[in-house]
Amino acid sequence: MTTTVHTRVAIVGAGPAGLLLAQLLRGAGIDSIVVDSRSRDEIEQTIRAGILEEGTVEALVAAGVDTHAHQVGMRHDGIELRFDGAGHRIDFADLVGRGVWLYPQHLVLQDLLATLVPAGADIRFETTAVRVDDVDGERPRVVVTGPDGAESEIAAEIVIGADGSHSVVRRAMSGSRAGLYREYPFAWFGILCEAPPSAPELIYSNSPNGFALISQRSDTVQRMYFQCDPDVDPASYTQEQLWEILQSRVPGTTLHEGPIFQRDMLQFRSFVARELRRGRVVLVGDAAHTVPPTGAKGMNLAIADVLLLHGALRAFLLENDPRLLDGYEQTALHRIWKAQNFSWWMTSMLHQMPEASDFDRMRQLGELRSVTDSRAGRTYLAEAYTGWPLELGG
Amino acid sequence: MTTTVHTRVAIVGAGPAGLLLAQLLRGAGIDSIVVDSRSRDEIEQTIRAGILEEGTVEALVAAGVDTHAHQVGMRHDGIELRFDGAGHRIDFADLVGRGVWLYPQHLVLQDLLATLVPAGADIRFETTAVRVDDVDGERPRVVVTGPDGAESEIAAEIVIGADGSHSVVRRAMSGSRAGLYREYPFAWFGILCEAPPSAPELIYSNSPNGFALISQRSDTVQRMYFQCDPDVDPASYTQEQLWEILQSRVPGTTLHEGPIFQRDMLQFRSFVARELRRGRVVLVGDAAHTVPPTGAKGMNLAIADVLLLHGALRAFLLENDPRLLDGYEQTALHRIWKAQNFSWWMTSMLHQMPEASDFDRMRQLGELRSVTDSRAGRTYLAEAYTGWPLELGG
Repeated sequence: MTTTVHTRVAIVGAGPAGLLLAQLLRGAGIDSIVVDSRSRDEIEQTIRAGILEEGTVEALVAAGVDTHAHQVGMRHDGIELRFDGAGHRIDFADLVGRGVWLYPQHLVLQDLLATLVPAGADIRFETTAVRVDDVDGERPRVVVTGPDGAESEIAAEIVIGADGSHSVVRRAMSGSRAGLYREYPFAWFGILCEAPPSAPELIYSNSPNGFALISQRSDTVQRMYFQCDPDVDPASYTQEQLWEILQSRVPGTTLHEGPIFQRDMLQFRSFVARELRRGRVVLVGDAAHTVPPTGAKGMNLAIADVLLLHGALRAFLLENDPRLLDGYEQTALHRIWKAQNFSWWMTSMLHQMPEASDFDRMRQLGELRSVTDSRAGRTYLAEAYTGWPLELGG
Repeated sequence: MTTTVHTRVAIVGAGPAGLLLAQLLRGAGIDSIVVDSRSRDEIEQTIRAGILEEGTVEALVAAGVDTHAHQVGMRHDGIELRFDGAGHRIDFADLVGRGVWLYPQHLVLQDLLATLVPAGADIRFETTAVRVDDVDGERPRVVVTGPDGAESEIAAEIVIGADGSHSVVRRAMSGSRAGLYREYPFAWFGILCEAPPSAPELIYSNSPNGFALISQRSDTVQRMYFQCDPDVDPASYTQEQLWEILQSRVPGTTLHEGPIFQRDMLQFRSFVARELRRGRVVLVGDAAHTVPPTGAKGMNLAIADVLLLHGALRAFLLENDPRLLDGYEQTALHRIWKAQNFSWWMTSMLHQMPEASDFDRMRQLGELRSVTDSRAGRTYLAEAYTGWPLELGG
């Protein structure tokens, strides 16, 4: 016989979206259970990049998360767009009066767990959601297997799919009619190296050889990426070759080289789920959408979903008012498609497409010039990069 | 034996670019001869659309052209972008403090000829340039056949190719290495009809069935276009069918129908010549570049070329200073590629591409929402539509 536990909200996935939602619900006195197939260590130690919109950091603070973003993170008030051998600064502070924080995603997760776990939140690690039963009913059930392999179920008034791009909850909702997507004919080759920063801010570089992003991690460790063939083997380059490629992608800038101690590949994909909600089952974050990394929108968009959904769940669960929940999909999609467009735009403006003609290449430079020549163009980009105001659906 | 006449500047093509250049040179006391294969009547009576940037009209006035743009033209202080069933106004006056004038190109030509001919300008109609000899020499010669079929040549210090997209001068300069181009998988079907205006300003409509542009000509005659297959036969539709198509392309707007008395097809092509200047031979206007009509940049870009080149020719011919002429190509290309990008952007944002996926279609709506939601986005579009400040290369 299967054991059933009951809660108001079952959250599948202990990523930024799932954990922040648990924290916000806790603040509203709404019980939840979070399950994740990974161990706490795995969640906290998997190094991932992160650029947080100022509004995202403010939302974490307002939710009572004991975040170290302001202490450990690096505030950036601009980025550089580099093309045709010259850099062009997008001055966020001047253009839109706000900035972003470089604060890796695993530190956000550490902050969230350090807030939730001591407070007694019910977070079940190494607990894998295998399916959702009674998706269309009044009390859908998440069927899980625990660390011991035993199956049990969590019955809830609301089930949240915060379980990433291969979402089990999404599959239970929509089957194989997953959603709309776009593939890109390249990937990012990422490195971590021991070296001082090569630039004070991120450099997004369009070069004839392809895109590169020069990012920063600390005074002694740097993160860099370059556009590459998606089938390349990260181990197939020597360190010398990697530095040669990176240097060639940022003409006019001299990179500070140092030992490369990590290599990884980031695949490029744009995806939006066909439905974000079905009855009492709702998707947030990567389960609902994936963006390519160029616009740095991934985690921010997940947080925006959760802020919107939290208001809707409070109204539904505490006041029996379904209106915000009924509007969640449409309101969320407005922002999601703008973010999809921004991520696509930054990607297409900065990368070399294998099929691009000479005309396309010159047009791309014409676009970069149009944006950087114009205060309005720079502002339009800065607004998107630093984040549109959060629409709380009220 | 071939007759040779001598002049300082030989201008091939009596379109807006060639005629305005002749007028500006005349103002500087520099002789020129303009040749065109068409008759004056043909030039003045071939009905073509025209949206003039405010700066273009100001440039015509400043050049001493007796233009009726301010009397006969219609000033527009905005356009409407229509998508997802709703209109979104781009308020040029508010955003950038300038507007555009609807004033057809053949009226611009009438104004130019009415100014030049009585003043004794040397304009030779029905005179066809067949080739340019000694392109690389100090005194290139335009070989022409006159109305009587007799061949003669015009030797000049400077030869200008203002002879449109099939430029003979460009071929003489660059041979078959014509330039960079992009084709589009659609065309515009244009109509003129007897009806009152359907809207006070232009409507650029993105609909699931394809693009439409609702434009105005006068209180009783209207101009409209819709995206169509480039191979369609304009005669193959009944009037009823044309109205049905047009109505379906502007959901939420009711068009005022009336007898359709002209139909034409506008082909879509983006083109930029590989070289704009070789020694003493220089290209301007459509000979140097073609843009699709979506951004209304064609004639304005031609005028911008001429304003830039005029300054360079004055310095070169009157002060023997080649610096501005040496810089012409690079300075002109800066604006040209921005205009190419703007025309491509408006086209790609508003049209249905045959190969577009569901993702692409939703991303496109996300882009239209991003632009219209943001004052910076609207301003960025308005700046380009109403025209960037003229850089005179000084």
